[in-house]
Amino acid sequence: MKLLRVGPAGQERAAVMDGAGDLRAISEEIDGAFFASGGVARVRAALEAGELPVLDAAGLRTGPPVARPGKIVCIGLNYRDHAEETGAPLPAEPVVFMKAPNTVVGPDDEVLIPRGSVKTDWEVELAVVIGGTARYLETHEEALAAVAGYTISNDVSEREFQLERGGQWDKGKSCETFNPLGPWLVTADEVPDPQNLGLRLWVDGEPRQDGTTEDMVFPVAEIVRYLSRFMVLEPGDVINTGTPAGVALGRAGTPYLRAGQVVELEIDGLGRQRQTVGRA
Amino acid sequence: MKLLRVGPAGQERAAVMDGAGDLRAISEEIDGAFFASGGVARVRAALEAGELPVLDAAGLRTGPPVARPGKIVCIGLNYRDHAEETGAPLPAEPVVFMKAPNTVVGPDDEVLIPRGSVKTDWEVELAVVIGGTARYLETHEEALAAVAGYTISNDVSEREFQLERGGQWDKGKSCETFNPLGPWLVTADEVPDPQNLGLRLWVDGEPRQDGTTEDMVFPVAEIVRYLSRFMVLEPGDVINTGTPAGVALGRAGTPYLRAGQVVELEIDGLGRQRQTVGRA
Repeated sequence: MKLLRVGPAGQERAAVMDGAGDLRAISEEIDGAFFASGGVARVRAALEAGELPVLDAAGLRTGPPVARPGKIVCIGLNYRDHAEETGAPLPAEPVVFMKAPNTVVGPDDEVLIPRGSVKTDWEVELAVVIGGTARYLETHEEALAAVAGYTISNDVSEREFQLERGGQWDKGKSCETFNPLGPWLVTADEVPDPQNLGLRLWVDGEPRQDGTTEDMVFPVAEIVRYLSRFMVLEPGDVINTGTPAGVALGRAGTPYLRAGQVVELEIDGLGRQRQTVGRA
Repeated sequence: MKLLRVGPAGQERAAVMDGAGDLRAISEEIDGAFFASGGVARVRAALEAGELPVLDAAGLRTGPPVARPGKIVCIGLNYRDHAEETGAPLPAEPVVFMKAPNTVVGPDDEVLIPRGSVKTDWEVELAVVIGGTARYLETHEEALAAVAGYTISNDVSEREFQLERGGQWDKGKSCETFNPLGPWLVTADEVPDPQNLGLRLWVDGEPRQDGTTEDMVFPVAEIVRYLSRFMVLEPGDVINTGTPAGVALGRAGTPYLRAGQVVELEIDGLGRQRQTVGRA
């Protein structure tokens, strides 16, 4: 299934693409409480029973498919070619940092260049949405069982704030609008192999990133297992699993984003995003 | 006023110390929505009008004074003597990292040493609770106006996870139970000078930290102003403002925490915490 949230920012309604169903009878929100209470199974049962009223989403904005995550955990340098382009050694174990949860916006919302920024960069990433509590998991099977589904994340990053202003990356990852998410949460059963997805990004129509999740240093199952040993992952949490090569930081001339540009992102089976770049 | 939450974990009730008032008529929770909707002013008015029913909190557990913050932002190396003991240079601008919001527990709850940890450490800190939205603030006056109040934080840290496992600190800061918070949220009007507070920590009754917020490299007003230029701070967010010298990492013999030990923390006017150390 493809779960989504449609409507004006802050007033989104939960919906399901398959049959364009309105989820209000099942849940007001797609969030931690929805996943924790078996919401995905309830939607599936209602869909199969033909019980969902049809929602006419024509003309409605698409919001992020998960209402305010409890946390956003990010994995750094998780593609060989991206580690190389940034001049960093390949990590021996996952590099972990965080993004403020209020960076999340819809997949087609405006991305704002922060005031004083000259190095705002893009990063197409496979986002994992957690569906169950994950604490000290031992196996990859347990880890995948804790995944509700997948979506696209643009892990927007300000490279000066991230790398030249103290050394801890969060400062360059948490600016307003820095995490377009969506369009859909595709449930895990429809993504049989998360390590076999092409992911692409364009700026003003020019291809900038074109990778595959096959090239991840640490695959999704290992990331979730590993993280669960350092923190408790909870339903509704989001993990940004890293970006392949092709970011502005690693390109000739470091062509960082400028106001007026258009960024488009796509992952096989997960849909497409399109953001216009503005100024904060 | 001293706001607090009492009751079993996950079922806390909002209360105010002054007159031991039950806040249920005003708000079910002390959280972002409470602050954003003028909750502090409503409690004050109700207290002055003598309208609050008395809450008998005898025997009830004290929870964290803020229900699940939207984010926890931490300032690293913000005391001269602590930067020195860790061998780090004094920062030219605030070092910013994050802690998972689900690390928050009550001030007297058990702190768990993570599995596989041999370097779990303590950090007494002045915690700032945000009461208004802070975005691109210019002045220290605006910054202090966005502060709802203050409380005590134990910014528990696993030094191996933080410093030897990839370089980004969040991995050693986000383990389960790693942020005892409380006992009270003391409203900003009762803390006329946040830069003149003594803060102390003991392990098994032995003094370990004994500092003053006078020695902060970046004072509260500057921290809030600075952070608001890199991220949007929202009501209910928590900022851990750094720790003075005396952590295990900086002491002879690096006496990291062991199960069975008792950690006590105190900040002038903000009360006292007491945690027993257990194992995850």
